[in-house]
Amino acid sequence: MGTTVLMDNLWVIIGTILVFFMLGGFILLEAGSTRMKNAGHIAGKTIFTAGIGSLVFWAIGYGFIYGEGNGFIGLSNFFYGDASTADEGLVPAVDFMFQMMFALVSLTIAFGGFAERAKLSAYVIFAILFSALIYPVVAHWIWGGGWLGEHGKQDFAGSTVVHLTGAMAALAATMILKPRIGKFNKDGSTNDIAGHNQVFTALGVLILWVGWFGFNGGSTFGVADAFFGFVALNTQLAAGAGAVAAMFIAWVVTGKADVPTTLNGALAGLVAITASCGFVEPWAAVVIGIVGGLMVFYSVKLFDKAKIDDPIFALSVHGTVGIWGTLSNGLFAVPELSTDIGWGQAGLFYGGGFTQLGVQTLGVVASGVYAFVVSYIILKVMNAAMGGIRVTEEEEIIGLDLSEHGSYGYPENLPQNKEKAGA
Amino acid sequence: MGTTVLMDNLWVIIGTILVFFMLGGFILLEAGSTRMKNAGHIAGKTIFTAGIGSLVFWAIGYGFIYGEGNGFIGLSNFFYGDASTADEGLVPAVDFMFQMMFALVSLTIAFGGFAERAKLSAYVIFAILFSALIYPVVAHWIWGGGWLGEHGKQDFAGSTVVHLTGAMAALAATMILKPRIGKFNKDGSTNDIAGHNQVFTALGVLILWVGWFGFNGGSTFGVADAFFGFVALNTQLAAGAGAVAAMFIAWVVTGKADVPTTLNGALAGLVAITASCGFVEPWAAVVIGIVGGLMVFYSVKLFDKAKIDDPIFALSVHGTVGIWGTLSNGLFAVPELSTDIGWGQAGLFYGGGFTQLGVQTLGVVASGVYAFVVSYIILKVMNAAMGGIRVTEEEEIIGLDLSEHGSYGYPENLPQNKEKAGA
Amino acid sequence: MGTTVLMDNLWVIIGTILVFFMLGGFILLEAGSTRMKNAGHIAGKTIFTAGIGSLVFWAIGYGFIYGEGNGFIGLSNFFYGDASTADEGLVPAVDFMFQMMFALVSLTIAFGGFAERAKLSAYVIFAILFSALIYPVVAHWIWGGGWLGEHGKQDFAGSTVVHLTGAMAALAATMILKPRIGKFNKDGSTNDIAGHNQVFTALGVLILWVGWFGFNGGSTFGVADAFFGFVALNTQLAAGAGAVAAMFIAWVVTGKADVPTTLNGALAGLVAITASCGFVEPWAAVVIGIVGGLMVFYSVKLFDKAKIDDPIFALSVHGTVGIWGTLSNGLFAVPELSTDIGWGQAGLFYGGGFTQLGVQTLGVVASGVYAFVVSYIILKVMNAAMGGIRVTEEEEIIGLDLSEHGSYGYPENLPQNKEKAGA
Repeated sequence: MGTTVLMDNLWVIIGTILVFFMLGGFILLEAGSTRMKNAGHIAGKTIFTAGIGSLVFWAIGYGFIYGEGNGFIGLSNFFYGDASTADEGLVPAVDFMFQMMFALVSLTIAFGGFAERAKLSAYVIFAILFSALIYPVVAHWIWGGGWLGEHGKQDFAGSTVVHLTGAMAALAATMILKPRIGKFNKDGSTNDIAGHNQVFTALGVLILWVGWFGFNGGSTFGVADAFFGFVALNTQLAAGAGAVAAMFIAWVVTGKADVPTTLNGALAGLVAITASCGFVEPWAAVVIGIVGGLMVFYSVKLFDKAKIDDPIFALSVHGTVGIWGTLSNGLFAVPELSTDIGWGQAGLFYGGGFTQLGVQTLGVVASGVYAFVVSYIILKVMNAAMGGIRVTEEEEIIGLDLSEHGSYGYPENLPQNKEKAGA
Repeated sequence: MGTTVLMDNLWVIIGTILVFFMLGGFILLEAGSTRMKNAGHIAGKTIFTAGIGSLVFWAIGYGFIYGEGNGFIGLSNFFYGDASTADEGLVPAVDFMFQMMFALVSLTIAFGGFAERAKLSAYVIFAILFSALIYPVVAHWIWGGGWLGEHGKQDFAGSTVVHLTGAMAALAATMILKPRIGKFNKDGSTNDIAGHNQVFTALGVLILWVGWFGFNGGSTFGVADAFFGFVALNTQLAAGAGAVAAMFIAWVVTGKADVPTTLNGALAGLVAITASCGFVEPWAAVVIGIVGGLMVFYSVKLFDKAKIDDPIFALSVHGTVGIWGTLSNGLFAVPELSTDIGWGQAGLFYGGGFTQLGVQTLGVVASGVYAFVVSYIILKVMNAAMGGIRVTEEEEIIGLDLSEHGSYGYPENLPQNKEKAGA
Repeated sequence: MGTTVLMDNLWVIIGTILVFFMLGGFILLEAGSTRMKNAGHIAGKTIFTAGIGSLVFWAIGYGFIYGEGNGFIGLSNFFYGDASTADEGLVPAVDFMFQMMFALVSLTIAFGGFAERAKLSAYVIFAILFSALIYPVVAHWIWGGGWLGEHGKQDFAGSTVVHLTGAMAALAATMILKPRIGKFNKDGSTNDIAGHNQVFTALGVLILWVGWFGFNGGSTFGVADAFFGFVALNTQLAAGAGAVAAMFIAWVVTGKADVPTTLNGALAGLVAITASCGFVEPWAAVVIGIVGGLMVFYSVKLFDKAKIDDPIFALSVHGTVGIWGTLSNGLFAVPELSTDIGWGQAGLFYGGGFTQLGVQTLGVVASGVYAFVVSYIILKVMNAAMGGIRVTEEEEIIGLDLSEHGSYGYPENLPQNKEKAGA
């Protein structure tokens, strides 16, 4: 094996490790953004979800994405079989592991719609089905040789594939589960249900940011021209611009530099640049990040107004901004960069006209609709078959730590809940 | 220096950094699994233990393992001297650093037996002696050219050397220290002393999982054939399978998907695959992980029945499952993989007969007995010489944060303890 | 691009990611060392500070450091322009990103002087000015072709540039802001204002330690001779020695093995070795670390005596020990190592006489004075222009989470503050 190929593999396995580390960021982000009584549940589910997602990906997920098949789905390479057909350059195991991590991240985003009120059993079943039937199909369409990729859809590291797909599943879940107790009042007003630990949330964002260098940078699939440096630079600038923009808009509008908004702004910048990090110039990365940061602030307000409960802001951060990220590629993509990578067109602002923007829009609509509709159907069927996918009101009040797992995540901190639970 | 050799060094230093990061996982795992009143103590001891372990390894540990000597112990290369005699391919400092990190992990596992009741001074002395006299001897036997390695003992990344050795020291410690106040009742029943923070524990497991890619992957000692990818794949599947298996067995048996059991299952999968990650096929990694996950659930119950207090589950996770991991290699090792690496035999299920299984068993027994007996003798002598190695009952009740370090880890969270302590 | 050059870029981008991860360590270190009522503020500011620092560095910081200019400041390459003039070997984006991370770390250190009482708006303005006018100038002097580098000033990874510069800004801030309410009594005695979470602090130190392998190791700017291994070894030994030395001096002097002191000792070892990690032998690294660990213990006491409030110990860890680290290079630098790297002289103990020690002293004084004086002037002007840069007494008592951001970081943990705030 040539030296440069070895180095490609080395870089992508490092990217793999970084993306897996993002799950640690999600543990903190999700637990920190919700209440103490559900913290053990949320942290613990991330670990077994990593297990379920990995096993399903091994059994069928990879085959559905990258197997020989048709424009809709792949149909070979199950159970790490025929592994030698994987991407040239990367050895099969490295390619397999890198792709697996993206599936785990998308699944973790989907959880956002279930938070604080879904039955554990329902989430476990959905996690299996999402990993088997939803994520792999969209990934096949765009990355696995499917019909959207053939149309020139550009999604460098997964604004659509990973983020939008996860967010659409979350949207279906939160619509069917209905809002948490206490989120919306009868008079139409909204309560802020504050997360219990902003240090967790902030550290989670920082870890996600760190992992994103593997998410975006590893999506170069190698070390050619040390292009990962440019990708990292765009990633950094967009994240930073998103955080600053979100903080200032909150400060100006509400008079307070709200911490959760600032943190969402950084994530918004990261999600927004994900589709374009290899295709745009640094100044455009700053613009993409700023728009993402502003957008997340208003998107959260819109979902509140629409009476859609979005406990971990997955719909705004990964959904709304995932769409913006995908479309922004059609605006800012530089001709040379798009050509270098070898597919796609220049964006609107670089004389590419509306072609790429149209393809990007098609990709968003098709992927979003697929992910939402299939998730919705699955959850509706489950809702009927399982006598509801939501815990009882009493269980929700005492918290899912106790109701689903039998012990509190913070047993020394919750005397009032202990009493309520009769423990 | 050739390019590939440079790359070997680059990969192993990355592995080194990842293994060191595992200590962060242990801070969270150990602190999260115990009570608030001991949290500062446990977190802080991990930092100075890293210091003590590093200095002892520098002074004599490395020399005892890899120095010129005999089948029992090495006897040169102290204080990073004669560094040029290190492994070919890796430069001395990289090899030295990678090996040092394994010694630190083993020591951290050994702490499990001391948790929540050992005097700080006793633990400090034991940490020095373990790093000098216990870990290096077992490591020399298997990895440093000692008698077990010569018999063909296979231990890819240390199921025996690191995990079992640490766990046996923990067993000796917990037997001599006796159970924590309140763990066992006079009527023979057992109380669950819940850890105070499951988010910490879950994040700790995730960080350990991340670090394990360096622990197992780095044990390839290089980038040849990008074999690290295959090792990472087996590691991932075993960890995932362990988490899922443990969660379901708990759910089925107890009716609750217990979070600490799930987390222990992931670790069990990781410990189990450590000996075999480079020697077995992916389906075998799944089986090894599942068995590890089931085993840890029952092992915890057995230690409880035996009235052996295992606060951080070190005995079950690293001991019981460490044994399983070592033996499973004798069952599932694939001939080609074992031959490629250059030593050892095919496992029982691959026509290798009982040869490798026998060697693995010998390795477990010899290493386990050595680590246990020497730890036991050391601690018994210390117990006599120091007027006991356990804090007083009063100190245990107020917690080791205050008794050993003079301040609480969470001063704003423990009013009741403050009062008790008269502070 | 040649294979080795690609590998250089690969190693430096890994170093970049590790240094950025240090901000996660700072979130935990700073939040853990302060009180619950300010935790959300401190964690959140780290995220938007990363944003501000990145944008300012992109716009002008890099150009002031590395642009064509004079001995005092660089004056080209703004907004990532003329990127091709960057360091040979590394591609512009990789070099840019690595340098950016050092600027972010220095800014984060400077925050230490603002903690728990500065207005958010004041800190935001200062963060911009520090990133634009203070850090880049010192970095230009030593690393960017400026006058101190031309005199042979050695600062391998930034004991002076990063740590001392940040600490001097923190000193100016804490002097102008005055001590926190309750820190010093009218009778001249001092109160210990305990940080609220030692687990956070310890994990923060561990993450910083992990990141330091990128900070120091990445400062080799490549993989030549796998020299990063030697740098990592020195880093590890100094950190370990610092932790052990600090713990024992506290234990001997106060009777308690104080956890925060132990943690500061590890950081002191890391700061101390930063200037010299590529220039000294391992035994010297141990000595440098031990002195750093002892020094931090006494330095904290001295600042207390001088009635200078240093909430996160930035002055002692990064200032006092940053000076020691820079000077120690003049004592212990080995001729071959200094020559290999290509500049500087042997230290006093290696027959180099007082030359290098003199240059190091000049560097410390010039850099320290510049950073302090400019910070002081800026903050004095801001203090006058903004009607004070400190929050009101009432705001300080309820905490900056509420006063500056509108919500508590731990809303479920602070009933007493909620009442006070009338919420």
